[in-house]
Amino acid sequence: MQFGIIGSGSWATALAKILTDNNNHIYWWIRNDETISYLQQRRHNPHYLHNARFDNSKMQLSSNLNYIIEQSDVLVVAVPSAYIHSVFSTLNTDVFGQRKIVSAIKGLLPGTNQLFNEYLQQQFNTRLEDYFAIVGPCHAEEVAAEKLSYLTFSGVDEAAAKVIAGHFNNEYLNTIVNHDIMGVQYASVLKNIYALGAGIAHGLEYGDNFLSVYIANAASEMVRFVRKMRIDEDGTGLNYAASAYLGDLLVTCYSLYSRNRMFGNMIGKGYSVKAAQLELNMVAEGYNASRSIYRAATAMNIDIPIAATIYNILWEHVPASSGFEHIETLLV
Amino acid sequence: MQFGIIGSGSWATALAKILTDNNNHIYWWIRNDETISYLQQRRHNPHYLHNARFDNSKMQLSSNLNYIIEQSDVLVVAVPSAYIHSVFSTLNTDVFGQRKIVSAIKGLLPGTNQLFNEYLQQQFNTRLEDYFAIVGPCHAEEVAAEKLSYLTFSGVDEAAAKVIAGHFNNEYLNTIVNHDIMGVQYASVLKNIYALGAGIAHGLEYGDNFLSVYIANAASEMVRFVRKMRIDEDGTGLNYAASAYLGDLLVTCYSLYSRNRMFGNMIGKGYSVKAAQLELNMVAEGYNASRSIYRAATAMNIDIPIAATIYNILWEHVPASSGFEHIETLLV
Repeated sequence: MQFGIIGSGSWATALAKILTDNNNHIYWWIRNDETISYLQQRRHNPHYLHNARFDNSKMQLSSNLNYIIEQSDVLVVAVPSAYIHSVFSTLNTDVFGQRKIVSAIKGLLPGTNQLFNEYLQQQFNTRLEDYFAIVGPCHAEEVAAEKLSYLTFSGVDEAAAKVIAGHFNNEYLNTIVNHDIMGVQYASVLKNIYALGAGIAHGLEYGDNFLSVYIANAASEMVRFVRKMRIDEDGTGLNYAASAYLGDLLVTCYSLYSRNRMFGNMIGKGYSVKAAQLELNMVAEGYNASRSIYRAATAMNIDIPIAATIYNILWEHVPASSGFEHIETLLV
Repeated sequence: MQFGIIGSGSWATALAKILTDNNNHIYWWIRNDETISYLQQRRHNPHYLHNARFDNSKMQLSSNLNYIIEQSDVLVVAVPSAYIHSVFSTLNTDVFGQRKIVSAIKGLLPGTNQLFNEYLQQQFNTRLEDYFAIVGPCHAEEVAAEKLSYLTFSGVDEAAAKVIAGHFNNEYLNTIVNHDIMGVQYASVLKNIYALGAGIAHGLEYGDNFLSVYIANAASEMVRFVRKMRIDEDGTGLNYAASAYLGDLLVTCYSLYSRNRMFGNMIGKGYSVKAAQLELNMVAEGYNASRSIYRAATAMNIDIPIAATIYNILWEHVPASSGFEHIETLLV
């Protein structure tokens, strides 16, 4: 099974480290030729995870995406969702749609609000059976430091997911297999909204007592949403307290340094969305996600009042304080 | 409804503040006469929550427990569980068994490993219908600072619990009513074991990714235990993601300064239980709780392997590192 990796951010770099630590040879697409030569000479990514060292004999780097795709059976895609369109719109290979795709993308695609599998199906006729997602609480820095983490490999073809996961499993990475491909992806989108909300609560000077009640109730609301997104209706027990769902929510909400948390904190302190974006020079994932999820929930008639209130604060000019006064009434 | 409060620690002081802020007159038992005169003159507890101010016209303080019990319809008991025996063994009033008792006690009674209602039933023939418990994520310091918190009032007589809760509800305290009296009390015992375990994991230098997976799985295990402790079997939906269960677990596990967390951290760093107790000059609640719960689970044939492993580390000389190597294999 020949792996290709697409992307060179911190998460792509961590996944490349895991695969090569496990003696898998990888084809690795990196857009920038300078980054490629730096990585080949200095054995680490110049921009991310400096302590992750690479062995040139285990990888072939290229800025030619068509070449990487042609060489690989399984493509692990780890580029920011904002760049998906520009990365894949220029492909001139027709084999991409036949490859197994493993999404390590966080969030929905901007503009279309699609999950990556929906984009792939539309653009390349990728079958859902050939699509997998890597999810779970996984700060890339901790993977680089080889601190034990748990990743869930989800796919409707659970047997194939298990084979792929087997190539990642090692002493610092425990892998779990799951078939709830839509649920785990939506959970990983929703968690960013709730983490942004946790930041707003912190900015509004709520304390730890409140935060724990907010997060517990957010977990409950998240499960209500992802349950509706299940493809299988056979009732096999999914454990929503598992790392792919509750675990990922916890690490994101309690991480003081996440972009969602910092962004939310500024909103809670009274900054406008625009001012917070300018000040932090970035867009937090939960910002766009709140609108996409709000629309999806409305269309599907799913009641998610906490996330809807965060949407109203971010997009509909509801003051953070009155939004949270409403959230206060929802919590149990 | 005349309230009496028994105890003068930080939690008792916070509850006295809430009741008097709501214009309830209270009878307040404080063991130490010096504390009583300090509180009357300086208007705050000399030892805890200095910013909680009291109005003498709203309270009557006494070190005579029989008197306090005789004057009150509802007694809120907030003494450390280790002192229950000595406080109540000298009563010479026979009305105690007819009072409504609200437990604000954390943990099981040492020696007998009883919940407080079991002790009361045995010693005073208190009916379960007259017993209530206050639970939920509630750092007393945040209540004193009037940061919004959520408390759950649980009792098999849910209507009476609601009346009592109504006396506590105010702008910084939202109250919730629940009938799962055994479940909420066991959840508040189990959380201390898992928080102690979170401290061990931290001492062993696991990272945030692992911690979130550990806590998510602990939540799942906690629910498995408390489900078995339900008295009602009518299937009315209990929300185990509510503040009394998941919320309380989260605030305890993520609180860096809790005694359980600090104690566990030392165990993880290689201290013996005895050395950790000497160094910290206290016993963390989770230590005794782990043995009591281990025995209860064994007797009732409930599978709680995470808590059982923490028991083995604390009581059966299993090294923390190998205990957690076992826990690693349990997590999903």
